[in-house]
Amino acid sequence: MSSSATARAYSREHGATYLEQLLQMLRIPSLSGDPAHAGDVRQMAEWLADHMQSLGLDQVAVMETAGHPVVYGEWMGAGPGAPTVLVYGHYDVVPASLEDGWDTDPFEPVIQDGRIYARGATDDKGQLFIHVKALEAYLKTSGAAPANVKFLIEGEEEVSSPNLAPFIESHLDLLKADVCVISDSSMRIIEEPAVTHSLRGMTYIEIHVDGPREDLHSGFFGGAVHNPALALVEILASLYNPDGTIAAAGFYEDVVSLTDEERAMIAKTDLSDEQLREATGVPAVWGDERFTIRERVSARPTLDINGMWSGYSGPGPKTIIPSRAGAKLSSRLVGNQDPNRIYEVLKAHVESVAPPTVNVEVSLLTIGRPALIPFTLPEMQAAARAYEKGWGYEPVFVRGGGSIPVVADIAAMMGIPVVMMGYGLDSDGLHAPNEHYSIEMFERGIETAIVYLEELAAI
Amino acid sequence: MSSSATARAYSREHGATYLEQLLQMLRIPSLSGDPAHAGDVRQMAEWLADHMQSLGLDQVAVMETAGHPVVYGEWMGAGPGAPTVLVYGHYDVVPASLEDGWDTDPFEPVIQDGRIYARGATDDKGQLFIHVKALEAYLKTSGAAPANVKFLIEGEEEVSSPNLAPFIESHLDLLKADVCVISDSSMRIIEEPAVTHSLRGMTYIEIHVDGPREDLHSGFFGGAVHNPALALVEILASLYNPDGTIAAAGFYEDVVSLTDEERAMIAKTDLSDEQLREATGVPAVWGDERFTIRERVSARPTLDINGMWSGYSGPGPKTIIPSRAGAKLSSRLVGNQDPNRIYEVLKAHVESVAPPTVNVEVSLLTIGRPALIPFTLPEMQAAARAYEKGWGYEPVFVRGGGSIPVVADIAAMMGIPVVMMGYGLDSDGLHAPNEHYSIEMFERGIETAIVYLEELAAI
Repeated sequence: MSSSATARAYSREHGATYLEQLLQMLRIPSLSGDPAHAGDVRQMAEWLADHMQSLGLDQVAVMETAGHPVVYGEWMGAGPGAPTVLVYGHYDVVPASLEDGWDTDPFEPVIQDGRIYARGATDDKGQLFIHVKALEAYLKTSGAAPANVKFLIEGEEEVSSPNLAPFIESHLDLLKADVCVISDSSMRIIEEPAVTHSLRGMTYIEIHVDGPREDLHSGFFGGAVHNPALALVEILASLYNPDGTIAAAGFYEDVVSLTDEERAMIAKTDLSDEQLREATGVPAVWGDERFTIRERVSARPTLDINGMWSGYSGPGPKTIIPSRAGAKLSSRLVGNQDPNRIYEVLKAHVESVAPPTVNVEVSLLTIGRPALIPFTLPEMQAAARAYEKGWGYEPVFVRGGGSIPVVADIAAMMGIPVVMMGYGLDSDGLHAPNEHYSIEMFERGIETAIVYLEELAAI
Repeated sequence: MSSSATARAYSREHGATYLEQLLQMLRIPSLSGDPAHAGDVRQMAEWLADHMQSLGLDQVAVMETAGHPVVYGEWMGAGPGAPTVLVYGHYDVVPASLEDGWDTDPFEPVIQDGRIYARGATDDKGQLFIHVKALEAYLKTSGAAPANVKFLIEGEEEVSSPNLAPFIESHLDLLKADVCVISDSSMRIIEEPAVTHSLRGMTYIEIHVDGPREDLHSGFFGGAVHNPALALVEILASLYNPDGTIAAAGFYEDVVSLTDEERAMIAKTDLSDEQLREATGVPAVWGDERFTIRERVSARPTLDINGMWSGYSGPGPKTIIPSRAGAKLSSRLVGNQDPNRIYEVLKAHVESVAPPTVNVEVSLLTIGRPALIPFTLPEMQAAARAYEKGWGYEPVFVRGGGSIPVVADIAAMMGIPVVMMGYGLDSDGLHAPNEHYSIEMFERGIETAIVYLEELAAI
């Protein structure tokens, strides 16, 4: 029997113990956004560090940051000839309470129909613990894993990881690895596991239009004063072409074209018009018709108006020319768009169309880099084989439409591929009441993670 | 000496008495918008009725409406061969208190530097009383005026006259007249009295755009769902031509062209670019360059966005596709635009451009008819002569950019010209703290009103 086979057998035998340990984690309300729970957050970090220590990991430490601590631990027993995997995860959770609609106490896990109901069950305690248990299975059987493993488990993912990039930057030697694996995502159905190989970045701006000193009587000035709401409307309309694409010069310049292979991969998870209409309630689908719906929401950049305001919005009429108008817009970016350059592109466009009749200001709210890791990389293909052998189904490579800045940060700062092996289900209810995680997926995840180390070593 | 000359002499002699009577009126806090002052409103109506009775007017009555009462009184002694003037005015006032910034009690008139400081001094107690005193001057001297006079003094002008149109409708016989005169407006300087011969009407609409059932995550759906804020922007932008004119088909169809004579008259009170910039604080003037600024704000129709809303407007970023967006728009109309037809024009335009990707609804909030009374009418020219002889300066005929529905209502329901002879100054501070009225203007007004009756009879 290969060392992975014995490790898998061990993990199956000890499923009840692993589950019991996960439930202990889930009982700690490690809410990173609530200062009242700072003690619980630290307790969670210490629990993880103690647990890693007990498994024989080295360099185990609760490492301080400007916010909540990072938990680090490593097993380098595979030696310098073997690859090193950096496992990223997060031990913090978003708030949850019975008043939000939970059927049971979100921090007193309940098992029903093969699912664990608790805050953090799938996001991300259950998924990060899979990697700890996979390493344990090797160490408790053959005494060694086929690859070296480092753990970087942070406690601020749910509050946008304000201290993670500085931490990585100042610990590049400690964290040095050949590949980063993250399990903090999901699949549609158990028979179709998903590896996310792309995430969109973001450039979030605000546009402010200032006209008259104060709201004017529209009877006395209407016709000779440029209404700031209209000026804003004209500026916003100019940002789009009639086909819904973005009109700012240079916006698409750095977009990496989709290959035929990628389009074929994306087609495996396409959404039909009807599915999109049903999911959202819109009367008809919209967008750039040269691309499929799934391509539009994941592989193409966007520009959405997130908010817009001007003048009076209460009941009944009020006959004013508003003194100002504003809008929030965010652009979802794809590889290789640079969010700072996109800010310059949008700002230049707005300034070029801004009329002299009002004062227009563009400001940057936030940015995030896109991440695009080709699924043809050996580390990606190893993940595919791991799912086939460990999970039991061939995975799809998917592009996420959202933004997880840490992925792009790790890829950029460490210069290594990031492999997002999701072990959750889309229907797990993360961030919602009654979040849950299937015990079957927890167990399949551990076996997949066991195989992944072996496949990585075989590259 | 002519009867008007003796009446004018009488009015000058009795100036102190007239003033004392006006102060009595100003001491009654007839706030129509505050139910706590309903008794004061009625007391004011009764004071006026008693006063008219004491002057020998007929049919004097405090007439009930669904709200505050109307005061009616008439003197028909000039006989059926003479013209009949209907004087419209209002005895109610807007709120005022020391906390608003008044230097003295707003309902305890103070005379300083030739001005009466009190709420209602210029709007409209002082101006309406001018007509009562003008008639009195005739009756107390020659015993007869050259024209018949009817008074229609309402108590709800400051709360949008909800019951006036029905009152007029049901008393058309009682109110029957050849011309209506209203003194409830103002001039820039005493040397340039103004007759308003046009007011803009209004069509006020709301546009609602509905997209997804609820706000969507812009990462998951951005690119394939038509952002309702963008759809609204596209609809609003389509309502305007690049030169700022309104693009809805048929919008300008019924607009009466300005004659050369009218343009020359408007030019007398034109605003320079600099004056407009200074008054409003805008960096540059805007609008239809075929027309002067004064023409744009008074003699041309407009379409202003009064309010606009969608999604998130709080601090920081929020990455949503809003589920809905909305806007309030109002169109200022000029003769002979029909507000209901303009509603149909705007609605048809919006519906014709509404995309199938969102649901769009247009609704009507309120309408008001424009009023345009040619200043070439004999009743208007008589007003000009009255100012020349009674006030001492030639007046300008001006167009008001705002809307006073009662003017259009009287003109439409009674089929008579409405002559707006303002006796106030733009700087009187109506609706503001320290409202005041110049005693000199009060006195010149009475003499002008005396002459007007004579000039009307001479037509």
